[in-house]
Amino acid sequence: MLEHKKFYEILYKFSSAFLLLLFLVCITPTPINAKTFNAESYTLENGMQVVVIPNHRAPIITHMVWYRVGAADEEQGSSGMAHYFEHLMFKGTQKMAPGEFSRTVKNLGGNDNAFTGQDYTAYFQSISVEHLEKLMQMEADRMVNLAPPEADFISEKSVVLEERRQRTDNDPKGLFTEQMLSTLFVNHPYGTPVIGWLNEIKGYEWEDVKSFYDNWYAPNNAILVISGDVTLDQIKPMVAKTYGQLKPKEFKERTRPEVPPLKSDTIMRLEHQSINQPSFQKLYIAPSSTQNKKDSLALEILQEIMSSGPTTRLYKSLVVEQKKAISVSFSYSGSALNYGTMWISGAPADDVNSEELIALIDTEIENVIANGVEESEVSSAIQRLQDQAVFARDSLSGPAMIFGRALTTGNTIDDVENWVEDIATVTKEDVQAVAKKYLSKDTPWLRSPVVGFLSPKKQEVAE
Amino acid sequence: MLEHKKFYEILYKFSSAFLLLLFLVCITPTPINAKTFNAESYTLENGMQVVVIPNHRAPIITHMVWYRVGAADEEQGSSGMAHYFEHLMFKGTQKMAPGEFSRTVKNLGGNDNAFTGQDYTAYFQSISVEHLEKLMQMEADRMVNLAPPEADFISEKSVVLEERRQRTDNDPKGLFTEQMLSTLFVNHPYGTPVIGWLNEIKGYEWEDVKSFYDNWYAPNNAILVISGDVTLDQIKPMVAKTYGQLKPKEFKERTRPEVPPLKSDTIMRLEHQSINQPSFQKLYIAPSSTQNKKDSLALEILQEIMSSGPTTRLYKSLVVEQKKAISVSFSYSGSALNYGTMWISGAPADDVNSEELIALIDTEIENVIANGVEESEVSSAIQRLQDQAVFARDSLSGPAMIFGRALTTGNTIDDVENWVEDIATVTKEDVQAVAKKYLSKDTPWLRSPVVGFLSPKKQEVAE
Repeated sequence: MLEHKKFYEILYKFSSAFLLLLFLVCITPTPINAKTFNAESYTLENGMQVVVIPNHRAPIITHMVWYRVGAADEEQGSSGMAHYFEHLMFKGTQKMAPGEFSRTVKNLGGNDNAFTGQDYTAYFQSISVEHLEKLMQMEADRMVNLAPPEADFISEKSVVLEERRQRTDNDPKGLFTEQMLSTLFVNHPYGTPVIGWLNEIKGYEWEDVKSFYDNWYAPNNAILVISGDVTLDQIKPMVAKTYGQLKPKEFKERTRPEVPPLKSDTIMRLEHQSINQPSFQKLYIAPSSTQNKKDSLALEILQEIMSSGPTTRLYKSLVVEQKKAISVSFSYSGSALNYGTMWISGAPADDVNSEELIALIDTEIENVIANGVEESEVSSAIQRLQDQAVFARDSLSGPAMIFGRALTTGNTIDDVENWVEDIATVTKEDVQAVAKKYLSKDTPWLRSPVVGFLSPKKQEVAE
Repeated sequence: MLEHKKFYEILYKFSSAFLLLLFLVCITPTPINAKTFNAESYTLENGMQVVVIPNHRAPIITHMVWYRVGAADEEQGSSGMAHYFEHLMFKGTQKMAPGEFSRTVKNLGGNDNAFTGQDYTAYFQSISVEHLEKLMQMEADRMVNLAPPEADFISEKSVVLEERRQRTDNDPKGLFTEQMLSTLFVNHPYGTPVIGWLNEIKGYEWEDVKSFYDNWYAPNNAILVISGDVTLDQIKPMVAKTYGQLKPKEFKERTRPEVPPLKSDTIMRLEHQSINQPSFQKLYIAPSSTQNKKDSLALEILQEIMSSGPTTRLYKSLVVEQKKAISVSFSYSGSALNYGTMWISGAPADDVNSEELIALIDTEIENVIANGVEESEVSSAIQRLQDQAVFARDSLSGPAMIFGRALTTGNTIDDVENWVEDIATVTKEDVQAVAKKYLSKDTPWLRSPVVGFLSPKKQEVAE
């Protein structure tokens, strides 16, 4: 019960890396088709979208319900409510006692979990295919009949507060990343941590919880994704008997403010006694795939060329050849309803400081901006990413995760299915162009990056 | 018409300095009474508070209406609406044509103006006393009968956008201060500029304007302050005929989020070709007088001791004696419904850089923290501030401004009347304590300060 939130922070911070991780599940490359997953989809009369990704390797399924609501949809002053509410979804309905949902899944030999991001909240179970209808009954039930006891509302606050303490307040890296994001995303909820600010978690009222449920949980704000040993025709009758019985609600459209352009360079520093190794992060705002699909694809290739293994540019040059860094990476995360992010990070070698390492990385980036990349780097990057996508389709939960996230962040089924073809259209000119557009020092895109230095606490010196 | 917003930014940024400016209007020191202004007050049945500050030196009055709504009360995505709405209040009612309000005041020999802050919006006129009732009629009229033509809604956007361009976007100092405040006030509307973010101003809808008026403009959210040649008994019948006829409305309580604790040091830099002289600002969050009256009073004394003229600590040490700075100041602004601010700023002498100057200022502050201040510095600071307050009561608009601002930021009439006595209670121990509490480098209060360096654009060097 208390384990089911472990993904949310990772999803938020390293969503692109996480996506790749999901891809790397199984290694049976098959030829590329136009449709990678052959997903089938339809929409119920009540507005709920249903996606089925057939996979008949074993008689099991992953059943996920994704809601188009996340931390970025919270009311001002109630940060963390989406994630907190995700906890409450396990606290019983008019028909089930608190905890009964997960116990039932476990007794049937399955496992269940949930996570919250800035743009979505998702609940999922993996189980033997014959129990699918039972899962649908239970999940449809808590979509509209949630009835957690008020005592659980209060006790669950302590659980979330403890979770926050462990992952953020007692972890200088977590805390520093939270503070950097809050500085990067001015005027935007992506700067607010998914788990929420400590004092706002403490301040939740029972009424806030109820109105959050009323505002966001309904079939027409949900997407059902089933991956595994079923077909669309097989599940239709079960869906009709369960989710199909629920009534739609009226919703306000989700809105997101704009980050105003910011021209000032920003540097943040945190010293902490539990840090042994100096390191830095450089955070940029970049377009998401929803905001700019073409540039997003080129940024994925750029990431792959710069930093996806020991032979790619940054690691090879700075760790292997020059020996100036212990670690170095460039990552791009483009899965979001609004802005994506780029992260450059590294830890300098013993005789180097973080500022020097940043200058060396800048040199590598300036080289890409000035001279572009090799044709062979682009084609090899495309091939690697395509292979990973093809591998992914043999996984059970991976494809469900990919579709759920795409559909809650403004993408379509076709965007997912055609990604393998789309990524192949990226040229070396595109890669050079996005490096120039989003990584130029003198002409930042939207705002200058925020640079953060994390270092060991200096020894106190007597006056 | 287009002139009436010149105060708002100054009020916001340097409200404490502005308050002192208002005090320095007239120089007729008189003995200190328990009540500095002898203000009289009552509340109408509809909830509107009325304050009269008699001043019979000349047959003139200042008539102000303050609303308990400011930029910090705006909806997310509609930043600048309070200020923009202030413009619209001059665009006519069911009875008056656009611009007729100000023309009428001018034709009667008076002048009118308005301004917006984070916590309030205020409208005021200064005029011969016999026209007071006419002003009340007009001001009561636009409180409930505003009817600007939709064409003016659109054209006024251009006016505000131009205002923003001139004061912020084309002014590197304004822009930099805006960006620093947005970094300092994480999760809080005080980080959003009063004038609003450019793209959000462009995006106002006619419906947003109407709901802003409906939500906030009503007698029970307004305070009438009249200063000048009247008594409470004289104005009561006029008030009853005008404001007394208006119906109250239901309001949501004003809420403000909390700034989460932030432990990272933050440094911002902006280089600009129109900057000739390097300078820096260091911004701290501090308690407002509403949040902590005792500490706020001690911070006012600390400010006075550090930086209120050529013989006070910072200027004397760093400009006169050491010749390390061209200018240097420490200011505290405590007038706010939520947090106050402290600003340390300076421009280094030719052979000094900003970092060195900051270190020298830090030494002065550490000296106060370690050794306190002199008894004589405290008593002389108290005397100077008391004199200024006593001078202020002979001004016409100054006292009205002081009361309006106090009452819209959580203070009471007694807080204003007793300020002269309260400030005299500050001891040198209090001053040392607040220096330690709010200015210690290693244990920041609530969050570390944001340090900003503004400097001339470096000459481009060919590669």
